[in-house]
Amino acid sequence: MTLAKKDVLEMESLSVEEIETILDTAETLKEISTRPIKKVPTLRGKTVVHFFYEPSTRTKISFEIAAKRLSADTVSISASTSSIVKGETLVDTAKNLEAMNPDAIVIRHSAAGAPHLLARLVEASVINAGDGMHAHPTQALLDMMTIREKKGRLAGLRVAIIGDIAHSRVARSNIVGLNKTGAEVILAGPPTMIPMGVETLGAHVTYHVEEAIKDADVIMALRIQKERQQAFVFPSEREYSQCYGLTEKKLVGAKGDVLIMHPGPINRGVEIAPEVAEGPYSVILDQVTNGVAIRMALLYLLLGGPR
Amino acid sequence: MTLAKKDVLEMESLSVEEIETILDTAETLKEISTRPIKKVPTLRGKTVVHFFYEPSTRTKISFEIAAKRLSADTVSISASTSSIVKGETLVDTAKNLEAMNPDAIVIRHSAAGAPHLLARLVEASVINAGDGMHAHPTQALLDMMTIREKKGRLAGLRVAIIGDIAHSRVARSNIVGLNKTGAEVILAGPPTMIPMGVETLGAHVTYHVEEAIKDADVIMALRIQKERQQAFVFPSEREYSQCYGLTEKKLVGAKGDVLIMHPGPINRGVEIAPEVAEGPYSVILDQVTNGVAIRMALLYLLLGGPR
Amino acid sequence: MTLAKKDVLEMESLSVEEIETILDTAETLKEISTRPIKKVPTLRGKTVVHFFYEPSTRTKISFEIAAKRLSADTVSISASTSSIVKGETLVDTAKNLEAMNPDAIVIRHSAAGAPHLLARLVEASVINAGDGMHAHPTQALLDMMTIREKKGRLAGLRVAIIGDIAHSRVARSNIVGLNKTGAEVILAGPPTMIPMGVETLGAHVTYHVEEAIKDADVIMALRIQKERQQAFVFPSEREYSQCYGLTEKKLVGAKGDVLIMHPGPINRGVEIAPEVAEGPYSVILDQVTNGVAIRMALLYLLLGGPR
Repeated sequence: MTLAKKDVLEMESLSVEEIETILDTAETLKEISTRPIKKVPTLRGKTVVHFFYEPSTRTKISFEIAAKRLSADTVSISASTSSIVKGETLVDTAKNLEAMNPDAIVIRHSAAGAPHLLARLVEASVINAGDGMHAHPTQALLDMMTIREKKGRLAGLRVAIIGDIAHSRVARSNIVGLNKTGAEVILAGPPTMIPMGVETLGAHVTYHVEEAIKDADVIMALRIQKERQQAFVFPSEREYSQCYGLTEKKLVGAKGDVLIMHPGPINRGVEIAPEVAEGPYSVILDQVTNGVAIRMALLYLLLGGPR
Repeated sequence: MTLAKKDVLEMESLSVEEIETILDTAETLKEISTRPIKKVPTLRGKTVVHFFYEPSTRTKISFEIAAKRLSADTVSISASTSSIVKGETLVDTAKNLEAMNPDAIVIRHSAAGAPHLLARLVEASVINAGDGMHAHPTQALLDMMTIREKKGRLAGLRVAIIGDIAHSRVARSNIVGLNKTGAEVILAGPPTMIPMGVETLGAHVTYHVEEAIKDADVIMALRIQKERQQAFVFPSEREYSQCYGLTEKKLVGAKGDVLIMHPGPINRGVEIAPEVAEGPYSVILDQVTNGVAIRMALLYLLLGGPR
Repeated sequence: MTLAKKDVLEMESLSVEEIETILDTAETLKEISTRPIKKVPTLRGKTVVHFFYEPSTRTKISFEIAAKRLSADTVSISASTSSIVKGETLVDTAKNLEAMNPDAIVIRHSAAGAPHLLARLVEASVINAGDGMHAHPTQALLDMMTIREKKGRLAGLRVAIIGDIAHSRVARSNIVGLNKTGAEVILAGPPTMIPMGVETLGAHVTYHVEEAIKDADVIMALRIQKERQQAFVFPSEREYSQCYGLTEKKLVGAKGDVLIMHPGPINRGVEIAPEVAEGPYSVILDQVTNGVAIRMALLYLLLGGPR
């Protein structure tokens, strides 16, 4: 199996077949991480550059582990320690990286569209590890893998996404991906956090969290990302938690086999109560485990074949 | 040889037999670092996470080199560039790391007990690379390896530890480890730097450095760690140096075959005079070399066997 | 082929034969970076320490990729996250690194001469990745490789170097290297940026950039490095650009087969116009590609043989 494209930039440009190929491949590769020797030689001699303009640990480590378990060589650039960034345009940085013959560049950037610009400029495969408020396709893919793994399918499921939809690249990528694969998406959150026109992406909107929870097969709580908001668009964390935080009390009305998800890192007691995050319905750590598998799958599908 | 435990957190929980196994293994593995090809495939496909909440270079590089010479894959997290740390509890960080299936996590943390908490939460082996003022077991083990290598034994030796005992995890781990293996430990330093009740760990205390030096087989000068002190508990560096600094003059009364040790990095002219640090009795660089061997031994003993 | 020396510190200490050996080796190794599997086992089990006291991304990544494509193990120290640097002399740091048995140390340092000090203290090979305003030999070597590759020779060519000669380790290393291999070097720039007595290195000086451009086979624009200047020694960037910036207009008088070079990163529109940097005469990205090859060659020649 390969992916007949150079880059993975957003869910919009992946077909249903491509999404299924990625999920199937990830399921196969997941087993490698449980072996005593967690390593296959598939990408030996490939160079993967991890280019993180925004701070990140979870995603960066997940990508690094994925690359290393496939035997790729990795080099890292982070904005904070990087002179390449200072006074140099992304265009020049891209061309310079390209000149060193990397096979893939994994990029996280605060500017929406940066990975797309990079992809146009380089022959290397580009994987978007999160760009501004735009897209985070590997997060959506690992979420979809986790749902499919637990529920056996995506089509026909109801997925509630709760929280700050407007500032969330995770929500956006999930809405698009889930919609493509036949799941129904319901969004709930404070009116200030629901962008106008989001229904055009194929999601329903409600301002009543209980309504979203009631028939959901999956409930995804989003992280309140203060660092991405101009001003905190809700009176207080406490009030947010009371209205929209996932608590055991609110889940009384949920289905008996509901899945609770969160992209992490968690603000405990704000968007999700600790007893819910660690409760029997939570698949939050499965998401993390599947993150490594999804990233292995993408690197394998983009670089593994005879390009 | 293996170690019948998951973690190495402090000297208190290692038996004499386990300490000897570690030292014996380190002696065997030490030779690898002198080969033209400094690498064995023992830990191929193992994932070692280096998780340093406190700045460190010496210890981190020593661990990284150790892991790589055993062919393990390594990924690093440092507090300064890490979003995983911000607003996330150590408990959540631990569970997230665990979900990526690492084989070992090497942790340095400013909070005493952090490695123990981590160890309880993860299946991966945890190695304490220094926690607050509590423990630094790999430093004690490399010190003991160096003494045994030079003196042929530990039992019956007199080891003087001089300086800021109260704030030193190095001192604490050495006192416990040396005591277990039958060495006698004498502590000397300003009264403000000797914690009350330290004798219960099995050490003698003197406030006269000459007395500690006189019959010592080994003299270990501790680093004055201003960053770890609330207030500098001595009038001045110059005065400290005159009273407690290891100078050639003070060593006139020492044994002819005394060993001079220091955990590094050295404050030249404060706790140790340059001519002593580089003098004929100094084994300070042997300590550094043995540090790589001890860390190789721990990774090998914890991960190498069929767990 | 090997290099009968331990270190590469500056162009002054390389003979013409050694320079040719390095360029020939780099030409041979360059091909590896274009293979599907970009890796050879030559330096398996060698430990290369990248020790960057000054921020750098381009050069650091180039060295890391070079080391990894030769299968060496790499560890990195950067000044910003490094406790080894704090309160420790370079002498102590050097001895400590040495005690961990590295095979090579690549060092960038703001102090001229730091790599030479390091080289005297350690048995490991030392490669200077740029020291203060003194030397940047790997940059000169990759520049010379690029010229030789495009022109077939170095001897007899005229190379114009334009800009801030006084603060440029790139200029200094190129002047020395090009002079040795029989190329003629013409320097042009504002009088405040041309150091007195630079002719003794074997270069001609002109204050008229058109004169330097006229008969040049190669034109090298230097980066305006504000961070390395006590005070900006020119009224404004705009004025600098008008007088010394490489524009299409200024190049009207140039040879039809001139090569345009720049060590990067580019200040677009200051020392070089975008249309020139990306124009048909530009070999700026070839320089980056050859940088990996030159660093592979040095690591191979210093570490690959039976030392």
